[in-house]
Amino acid sequence: MDNDLLIINGIVKTGIGDEELSSGYVAVASGLIRGIGEMSELSDSVIESASKVIDATGCLVMPGLVNAHNHCAMTLFRGLADDLPLLSWLQEHIFPAEAAFVCPDMVYWCSRLAAAEMIMSGTTTVADGYFFEEQAARALKEAGMRAVVAQGVIDFPAPGVPDPSANLQPPAALIKTWQGDPLISPAIFCHSAYTCSPETIQGAKQLARETGVRLFIHLAETSWEVEELRRRHGLTPLRHLHRLGVLDEATVCVHSVWLDLAEIELLNECGAGVVTCPESNMKLASGASPVARMLTAGVPVGLGTDGSASNNDLDLFGEMRSAALLHKLIGQDPTLLPASVMVRMATAGGARVLGLQEDIGELLPGKKADLIIVDLQKPHLTPYYDLDSLLTYAAVGSDVKSTIIDGVLVMEERRLLTIDLEETMRQVRSLASQVRKAF
Amino acid sequence: MDNDLLIINGIVKTGIGDEELSSGYVAVASGLIRGIGEMSELSDSVIESASKVIDATGCLVMPGLVNAHNHCAMTLFRGLADDLPLLSWLQEHIFPAEAAFVCPDMVYWCSRLAAAEMIMSGTTTVADGYFFEEQAARALKEAGMRAVVAQGVIDFPAPGVPDPSANLQPPAALIKTWQGDPLISPAIFCHSAYTCSPETIQGAKQLARETGVRLFIHLAETSWEVEELRRRHGLTPLRHLHRLGVLDEATVCVHSVWLDLAEIELLNECGAGVVTCPESNMKLASGASPVARMLTAGVPVGLGTDGSASNNDLDLFGEMRSAALLHKLIGQDPTLLPASVMVRMATAGGARVLGLQEDIGELLPGKKADLIIVDLQKPHLTPYYDLDSLLTYAAVGSDVKSTIIDGVLVMEERRLLTIDLEETMRQVRSLASQVRKAF
Repeated sequence: MDNDLLIINGIVKTGIGDEELSSGYVAVASGLIRGIGEMSELSDSVIESASKVIDATGCLVMPGLVNAHNHCAMTLFRGLADDLPLLSWLQEHIFPAEAAFVCPDMVYWCSRLAAAEMIMSGTTTVADGYFFEEQAARALKEAGMRAVVAQGVIDFPAPGVPDPSANLQPPAALIKTWQGDPLISPAIFCHSAYTCSPETIQGAKQLARETGVRLFIHLAETSWEVEELRRRHGLTPLRHLHRLGVLDEATVCVHSVWLDLAEIELLNECGAGVVTCPESNMKLASGASPVARMLTAGVPVGLGTDGSASNNDLDLFGEMRSAALLHKLIGQDPTLLPASVMVRMATAGGARVLGLQEDIGELLPGKKADLIIVDLQKPHLTPYYDLDSLLTYAAVGSDVKSTIIDGVLVMEERRLLTIDLEETMRQVRSLASQVRKAF
Repeated sequence: MDNDLLIINGIVKTGIGDEELSSGYVAVASGLIRGIGEMSELSDSVIESASKVIDATGCLVMPGLVNAHNHCAMTLFRGLADDLPLLSWLQEHIFPAEAAFVCPDMVYWCSRLAAAEMIMSGTTTVADGYFFEEQAARALKEAGMRAVVAQGVIDFPAPGVPDPSANLQPPAALIKTWQGDPLISPAIFCHSAYTCSPETIQGAKQLARETGVRLFIHLAETSWEVEELRRRHGLTPLRHLHRLGVLDEATVCVHSVWLDLAEIELLNECGAGVVTCPESNMKLASGASPVARMLTAGVPVGLGTDGSASNNDLDLFGEMRSAALLHKLIGQDPTLLPASVMVRMATAGGARVLGLQEDIGELLPGKKADLIIVDLQKPHLTPYYDLDSLLTYAAVGSDVKSTIIDGVLVMEERRLLTIDLEETMRQVRSLASQVRKAF
């Protein structure tokens, strides 16, 4: 069998330990990585017979990044309401804007824009959570992205779900439609323990267990949330979920800022995963998640950008940097969250939290061919002594030259191949002009 | 007189209040901004008679960024020693590497590489502090950058200054050579109050006063420094400098992390400026500078990246973002350091700290033509509701399309016009290969 795609002459970083090939190749066939090795081991006939050859001279070939928490469609609200107190931001700006503007068309085009931004900054897998999630699935699938697509569940009337008593029907329908898709994994996203009743959360988890999908929930994002849950249920958010019996290896606790040491141990016992979103937590002054302690305890941790209304970009390179810098300062220890840990969190770590660790996160024959080619011939990447340091502390999304997902080249030399970027930006700008008039 | 350069059809942000032209022009002649206005006011004959016309359709035209603290030549040590405790980083890695590798050739080529990175990320003015500073001046001047170039002073044998008792001779020579240059302003950089004696600091300030140049000093960067100064002199670093009589409007206190409220008031009374370097302070776990309080008190504050060994890039857009996000979190208030304050700090704020406020920092007829053209046609910059938010929370250096300094186009459509980038990267990589062998 000939290779569909052969990447040659690159520095190859497989993500397995410190493995690096100084001049290597990656062979791709039928969406999978078929072979990895030194160029010296590659015969001319293999190069000649490949359907497409990419010369990665001067570039780094590495696993694609995994954005483990996003609300893709919120690109529409990028920078709509910045530098505001959390409650004013949410209640006076974001919720009203969502009530007025979230519709299937909006979710489709704005998720498509998010896909363009993510592919152009090296993200190959995203975990999304929003409403009208079938439109997010459609946009991400068309863009050729790998995605976990989680339908939002909340106990208020929500976009596309006017009757909250029926709020488990959309995720059930989404799961039915998309389960088994090679790129899109459906899932359920309960907004939080303060906006979903115990019955809703338990019902969602039951559906998730029956269908074998993941349950996401915003958890302990702010100290207000902790106090509110204590007031309502006499327990912290995490202990409340534990009492509801919904914490297991297929539950993903997003943010997890306000956890004490015993709660970290509890998370670890349950096997639940965490996604940390440092830039969003900083921008909204929510707090600093105990990431270093969770990693020490053995809790799986992935990295997410959160939505564009609270970040305001989807660049995981910047997010790696923010996480590493923040936790060194907060922990008063510059050895915390070293670069190698951050690169792993943004690749294999996220894959594990999303339950995709068998398929992605490392470059290994037999795994899905999700990989990026990073151009190292830039002044800000010169010189370098350690690739993890370079990726964490100096690289940005625009250094990604080409992106391959499921064996398909979706960006080549900075040109998107699966998305009409001009048309997508035009559509989102048109929606934004309506938002601008209303706010 | 015809214009040397005419930028048309751009969104023009002058930096004066919230002034924005939705479709404007900037005319440049003899290195100065000659006119700014709406396109509707511009006649065809003016366009036709300009020596060069740049169409900035879909782009933002704004003041160039001011990096108020850098050690340009340290690009050589980018990522050499990350994720280490401060003292190990400095004493086991950076100081030995500097002792072994800092020479005139190294300073020239590595400063040239820094200039390339800065121009490509929208910085038009830099304040540099290092040894063999005449080589930094030469490299920055050749690159066409505006720079304050400060010769390092320290009470140990240093690169190019084997006898510390003669450590004020190199700055005196530098000042003599460069004073009056249209791009390069010479200055003096005392490393710190723990590496320079009271006599050295007073001597440096006397020389600075006699020649009318600025004195820079690293101040209160770490809590260790505060304790050490207390031990030696019975005073905090700032009070020590105050007692030495060296704090005035031409003194720049870099870092200023560990200051109490009374010290902020003292700074304000003396008129001294501050440069904050949040990413460096985070990466080395030094602490969070009381930036919001200093701004409230009226202290002039500029933004700096610090050198590439402790950042590891020179992108001021990222630095704006890090500063805004960090201080919201530390101050538990998302309204702190809003985007408009950050953009001002990275432009006019830095200009003021460097004493260049009459020349740069805003777009106004009669000021020096230091400006950048930012390409807004990118998915991560779409849509937008507020330009300051976009620049602070979403833009990166690589969004800068063209850079103009002193009326000269130094980067056009991402192509450097004053630096042979390939040759510069080759030279620095060659030096780095020697560093790699030694460490």
